[in-house]
Amino acid sequence: MDYFQTALAEHLKHQGKLEVKSRMPITTQDELSIAYTPGVAEPCRAIAEDVQRANQLTLKGRTVAVVSDGSAVLGLGNIGPEAAMPVMEGKCALFKEFAGVDAFPICLRTQNVDEIVRTVELLEPTFGGINLEDISAPRCFEIERALVERLNIPVFHDDQHGTAIVVCAAVINAFRLVAKPLSEVKAVINGAGAAGISIAKMLLKVGVKDILICDSRGAIHSTREGINDEKRELAVELKNARGYAFSEQIQTLSDAVEGRDLFIGVSAPNVLTAADVKKMREDSVIFALSNPTPEIMPDVALENGAKIYGSGRSDFDNQINNVIAFPGIFKGALEARATRITDEMKLAAVNALAYSMSDDELHTANIIPSVFTPNLAEIVADAVKGAI
Amino acid sequence: MDYFQTALAEHLKHQGKLEVKSRMPITTQDELSIAYTPGVAEPCRAIAEDVQRANQLTLKGRTVAVVSDGSAVLGLGNIGPEAAMPVMEGKCALFKEFAGVDAFPICLRTQNVDEIVRTVELLEPTFGGINLEDISAPRCFEIERALVERLNIPVFHDDQHGTAIVVCAAVINAFRLVAKPLSEVKAVINGAGAAGISIAKMLLKVGVKDILICDSRGAIHSTREGINDEKRELAVELKNARGYAFSEQIQTLSDAVEGRDLFIGVSAPNVLTAADVKKMREDSVIFALSNPTPEIMPDVALENGAKIYGSGRSDFDNQINNVIAFPGIFKGALEARATRITDEMKLAAVNALAYSMSDDELHTANIIPSVFTPNLAEIVADAVKGAI
Repeated sequence: MDYFQTALAEHLKHQGKLEVKSRMPITTQDELSIAYTPGVAEPCRAIAEDVQRANQLTLKGRTVAVVSDGSAVLGLGNIGPEAAMPVMEGKCALFKEFAGVDAFPICLRTQNVDEIVRTVELLEPTFGGINLEDISAPRCFEIERALVERLNIPVFHDDQHGTAIVVCAAVINAFRLVAKPLSEVKAVINGAGAAGISIAKMLLKVGVKDILICDSRGAIHSTREGINDEKRELAVELKNARGYAFSEQIQTLSDAVEGRDLFIGVSAPNVLTAADVKKMREDSVIFALSNPTPEIMPDVALENGAKIYGSGRSDFDNQINNVIAFPGIFKGALEARATRITDEMKLAAVNALAYSMSDDELHTANIIPSVFTPNLAEIVADAVKGAI
Repeated sequence: MDYFQTALAEHLKHQGKLEVKSRMPITTQDELSIAYTPGVAEPCRAIAEDVQRANQLTLKGRTVAVVSDGSAVLGLGNIGPEAAMPVMEGKCALFKEFAGVDAFPICLRTQNVDEIVRTVELLEPTFGGINLEDISAPRCFEIERALVERLNIPVFHDDQHGTAIVVCAAVINAFRLVAKPLSEVKAVINGAGAAGISIAKMLLKVGVKDILICDSRGAIHSTREGINDEKRELAVELKNARGYAFSEQIQTLSDAVEGRDLFIGVSAPNVLTAADVKKMREDSVIFALSNPTPEIMPDVALENGAKIYGSGRSDFDNQINNVIAFPGIFKGALEARATRITDEMKLAAVNALAYSMSDDELHTANIIPSVFTPNLAEIVADAVKGAI
């Protein structure tokens, strides 16, 4: 199937994807008087007396805003808020389909950090949670930080945390299968944008100690010139975690993969070569998440020494897909009326995803739950609620 | 039925009223690849190339934001954005139920005019139209004016224009029945907020020439001290239209109704007395729109000389209800990709509503179409489209 042309035709046919429906019928005068005036005055009064009741009496308590400025959409880049809408509508559809969570896209005509923060802040009475999406780094970090501080509802940047959660669940299961303790795993991450930085931080939390991160200019040493604050702070954090500094002679990705157990790419097509894979340790694990064209194709990786390969592609084994995480995470957070999504909640989601699969189920072509696993969102939601 | 308690129970049961659903199924990998990645990239690219295509490929082209700051909700006053949500969700449900137009509530945590304007401006990529709702005067005028100027999508303050459209349709039909030309009708409006001012202006447009308007302090003369700009400008406009100035001795509402054919109240309960009605001309028409308690009850009005009585109440004859107007108006505007809702479009809606009823259908207890009239939104939408 040509997904692109079919998608275009389907979006045209349905004029987008989402629609808004009433849960109360309005076909008689009585029904009108209950859903609207005069009856509606009563829930209004109840909320005016106790604003917390908005969670029970309006859609707020079960609805997430999927917010983007269109600055970093898929692999398409800065295509603007209107062009981001199909992705955000899709994301909302996934929230509903996989977790029964209502969601509505909010695409904003500004890429100014302060304006985005202020706008989302003003929208807080309408929504129970904020899912930030496809906002370019480093602006996404600032926006998330400010919103977490100012809002009393969960704020989650899926490109960072959703990706990190799913990757870490896949890492846990890959090394369960390979039977190597995470504390001994030597990892290299290629890509130091929102996803790469977040993956590095969460890998530390699940117990990986030795992580090297590269960007398009090569290995990131804390002493490297011309890197932004996020990258420098991360480089220091990684150095402290592993307890030693890498030789400054490690410069390129090809230098960096030497002797590593784990490669995680959130970067660009075809940047990892067969020769690079051969330099890695035995039974290496490769997650090549550049989409649609990964950092290395599965046959090349597996034929040159990798034991486990995963990517973002649905047509290869081991699809690493955020859809297994974010719907359940918000479901849990909303049901528990959490005001934030803490590291503990994220870690609970990681473990719930990983250990939703038994040892017996794991094999090299099956290390992560499918998006269509029944009740997966409930499993994640329950874990998240248990960590509050 | 106790509408208030039933409404509270129903809102609790459904956790509000609206839900967001996908028009595309997502139960298989192929469907996921069409609704989301990789397929979704194609509509994104199409919109990036031509931003107008967002109207065909996303919900934007068929979805209205119902925007409020919660400053003037029903008769409840300034109850805030969370407490306004049940009304806004209800409004959205009516859009869908009566015209198939999708709508989503946007309740904002600010009552600052500039912030509201800027926020709605930033939301333009997401929505095809803006319905302003329950925002207090005179801020609502400033907000609407600024948004109409800045946005390229229709902006409509229903409390002003929706009300004015429905009232004017009712006025046309009442005087069709009474057989008095509108140019000879002497009108008095009690209430000079958003609705009263807008009704006065639209009455002029449908041909009523002699209008006197009062607020809670009595008749508004252009020379009266301490009135806001909106009221003073209107007083001048009304004086010019009728070609003479009222005696300054007309001070109270009771003075103002003397010899009038038409009373329109958008004010407060029980402010019009039996004695006031007796002072009006024969076959007078009274629309008492204060809700839930009107300016005068129907039996009192009809027993003291009024020929036709209408109110906002669904349990009395002749309910004057905005629901017969706004869904069709937006349906027409969206379908035609109108960038504004002009006076011509509003007048077309007035006439479509009035003349959807034949002379034979009109009688004193039936001068305005019911909200449940089949295809009424289509009739209004077609008229609106024809006026672009």
